[in-house]
Amino acid sequence: MSKSKDESKNLPKKEKFSEWYHELIQKAEIMDVRYPVKGLYVWFPFGFKIRKNVYDILREIMDREHDEVYFPALIPETELGKEGEHIKGFEDEVYWVTHGGNTPLDIKLALRPTSETAMYPMFKLWIRSHANLPLKVYQIVNTFRYETKHTRPLIRLREITSFKEAHTVHATFEEAEEQVRKAVSYYKEFYEKLAIPCIICKRPEWDKFPGAVYTIAFDTIMPDGKTLQIGTVHNLGDNFAKTFEITYETPDGDHSFVHQTCYGISERCIAALISIHGDDLGLVLPFEVSPVQIVIIPILYKGKEEIVLRFSGEIYNEIRGKYRVIMDDSDERPGAKYYNWEIKGAAIRIEVGPKEVEENSVVVSFRDERKKFKVKRDELTEKIDTWAKEMRERIYNKALEKFKEKIKICENLNEVKNWIKEGVVLTYMCDSKECGSELDEVGNVLGEILELPIDVKMEGKCVICGKKGKLTAIAKTY
Amino acid sequence: MSKSKDESKNLPKKEKFSEWYHELIQKAEIMDVRYPVKGLYVWFPFGFKIRKNVYDILREIMDREHDEVYFPALIPETELGKEGEHIKGFEDEVYWVTHGGNTPLDIKLALRPTSETAMYPMFKLWIRSHANLPLKVYQIVNTFRYETKHTRPLIRLREITSFKEAHTVHATFEEAEEQVRKAVSYYKEFYEKLAIPCIICKRPEWDKFPGAVYTIAFDTIMPDGKTLQIGTVHNLGDNFAKTFEITYETPDGDHSFVHQTCYGISERCIAALISIHGDDLGLVLPFEVSPVQIVIIPILYKGKEEIVLRFSGEIYNEIRGKYRVIMDDSDERPGAKYYNWEIKGAAIRIEVGPKEVEENSVVVSFRDERKKFKVKRDELTEKIDTWAKEMRERIYNKALEKFKEKIKICENLNEVKNWIKEGVVLTYMCDSKECGSELDEVGNVLGEILELPIDVKMEGKCVICGKKGKLTAIAKTY
Repeated sequence: MSKSKDESKNLPKKEKFSEWYHELIQKAEIMDVRYPVKGLYVWFPFGFKIRKNVYDILREIMDREHDEVYFPALIPETELGKEGEHIKGFEDEVYWVTHGGNTPLDIKLALRPTSETAMYPMFKLWIRSHANLPLKVYQIVNTFRYETKHTRPLIRLREITSFKEAHTVHATFEEAEEQVRKAVSYYKEFYEKLAIPCIICKRPEWDKFPGAVYTIAFDTIMPDGKTLQIGTVHNLGDNFAKTFEITYETPDGDHSFVHQTCYGISERCIAALISIHGDDLGLVLPFEVSPVQIVIIPILYKGKEEIVLRFSGEIYNEIRGKYRVIMDDSDERPGAKYYNWEIKGAAIRIEVGPKEVEENSVVVSFRDERKKFKVKRDELTEKIDTWAKEMRERIYNKALEKFKEKIKICENLNEVKNWIKEGVVLTYMCDSKECGSELDEVGNVLGEILELPIDVKMEGKCVICGKKGKLTAIAKTY
Repeated sequence: MSKSKDESKNLPKKEKFSEWYHELIQKAEIMDVRYPVKGLYVWFPFGFKIRKNVYDILREIMDREHDEVYFPALIPETELGKEGEHIKGFEDEVYWVTHGGNTPLDIKLALRPTSETAMYPMFKLWIRSHANLPLKVYQIVNTFRYETKHTRPLIRLREITSFKEAHTVHATFEEAEEQVRKAVSYYKEFYEKLAIPCIICKRPEWDKFPGAVYTIAFDTIMPDGKTLQIGTVHNLGDNFAKTFEITYETPDGDHSFVHQTCYGISERCIAALISIHGDDLGLVLPFEVSPVQIVIIPILYKGKEEIVLRFSGEIYNEIRGKYRVIMDDSDERPGAKYYNWEIKGAAIRIEVGPKEVEENSVVVSFRDERKKFKVKRDELTEKIDTWAKEMRERIYNKALEKFKEKIKICENLNEVKNWIKEGVVLTYMCDSKECGSELDEVGNVLGEILELPIDVKMEGKCVICGKKGKLTAIAKTY
């Protein structure tokens, strides 16, 4: 498969982000963008390995207190339409299944855009008493949106192939709030592992999830200065409970509506991973999620092949049980091998030539730094974990540096209007609808900031009216 | 959730198989059958754990020589219709997506019934030369069939939630044949792990996969004597290659069509697992796939609670790293706990009362046998692996016994007609279309037998015409 790409042509520079992204996705064999339907893409084997590594982390975090389930992909029109706000939010982009064979269906079926309306009629049956609460489940599924805008692999899709959606049910609003806090902390942990700096915001009223009381969102800043929403956490209050009649018997024998939350992450987390860490040479991935954590490249000289291959093989055998390692003893030139493993983000490269065998050492380089250094063969294995940790920190710090470059505190509307072309605006905004609307015309108001990896005063004067305001992010968004 | 089922009502006896199956699926919390669309069901958390354990085995086997991928769920009508035989086989049961929001789609999209027509246009792009071959991929996905017959959880579904489909591409027909043999051996290994005896047949011409050269199928015998197809392996020859123009450059510089295979297993493997091993009390699962491999039940007497709980806790801590173990120290009566863990197929039950603490022992029973015996506490841990192995063998032998009871060699058409009401007919059939048609009217001709876990002569006189015939299975099928 690797032969189908044109290796002679280099990637565009990352500064041309959109082209770079599109080319890298194909050349690093993450997604094949040539599927014959707009907005649908194919996960290549290599891309799927990244997906697996990333979602294994997400699953491990979810499994701590959620049960995995699976609900049907088809939702009858009657259920999808029950919650007024919800259906309004989705009706323009729902795919409808109308026929089975040549037979028109009695009731149209929606391809799930998200699963509230598939799950909650069942939750009504599952929940009888306070003893059934809390209920915490998640699923990782494909969901569908009829996107009419420009589609982009991993970012704007007609089939979201990897939507992790968690749904929880609680006795009280406060318990739902507590779950929202936990969900936020889980997502923080997840993005820390991926070394991705995030803005955590409370979305403004007009941009919350359809049917929610409020929405907290994770956004990251892409290389072009636009933000990408990569996670949302919703407190649904008892809105859906009332629609779907989900009640429980309290210890006193009363019946109360439940309170619910839901929170989701899609393969946009992988779009962010690729976009934020990658460079002109290709993927840069944290050690933990790289499909090839270590690549060993024997440098073969005539007459010395055997000793080099034997030495390389010994190293390979020593580390392969513990790490994802590849020994590239193919016939290609070393330069072609370097190119290939750089574009695919192999985290650590180990080169072995006749000189290294003689010295009982190896040449090591890290994908993110690329400077080579020698390591004693006996010290190699014990150093890998430390290198992996240091590499994640370096990658995070570099990402954070770029994040800071793309974010700016703006003190007046003119500054806001100028900086929004470059990156993310931080400013202060009061509660009034008027000020919100005015700012939302300049860019998208991401909302009141709850957490940020940089130190900024949380309150100040509203940039529009001068009254007391809260720190707010505004950006062009994907 | 567990509280929503009515625990006071026992399962129907297994001899009423259809009722027993339907009730068990719900009561053991495998699938919720109450989803408001015919043929769609919800995986409960407990059911999903069984699914995970079973599919982990399947994935481990596949990963040995296949790469995991993901192709879109939506296939344009133009691609689905390309292979004439294939579309004829599926057109009556394809779900069609016709609208996005209120907008009619330019080209109708099929919800994949299987993924040949999603994958093969891409394989055309992936494969250029002999160096790209063989290609071996698989995916585990949801697929869709508009079933008009009676639907049944895990067996006949409108959304197959867990279809593992492998697709391979080879240079020659012989290499494809070799892959078919390997696939058969993988599926044999898989079903051996699940302790499920299988009939392996070559399907007759009229029942092969639409577009295949030939189809090999795995069937097992359900408690009511009907067979359930639980795996298929297809040699596609170059039929699809010609339709989708998948060619490769040979070492000599010629261009040849590739040869392909595909093979699949769905959640029917779990239907078989449940149906074949279960008993009047509920699930019986091989240790390896049981979500609860060991349950520890402390038997509490007044004044002795603490010493019993401490002792139980020590055992729990000792084994929980290695096995899936639950300590059931809830407030329910021991009888209710036994009921609950029996219906859910906990493989090993460990009871601890004050007497056991005194004797430094535990009471052990196995789900499949249910007789209790004492074991010295110090010998417990080391015995578990042996018990697990013995249990799998006992479960398999019991399944094989029942399998044998439901299968019979029939020497004339009258015997065939009588036995088909009870179970699977083995008889001899010649190659002629006429004899095949006549037998296919009596039951479904599963095909010429390739492998069987019982010893039967492979050739004999055709039961219709008396000419030379091959051992053939005929059955009522799901």
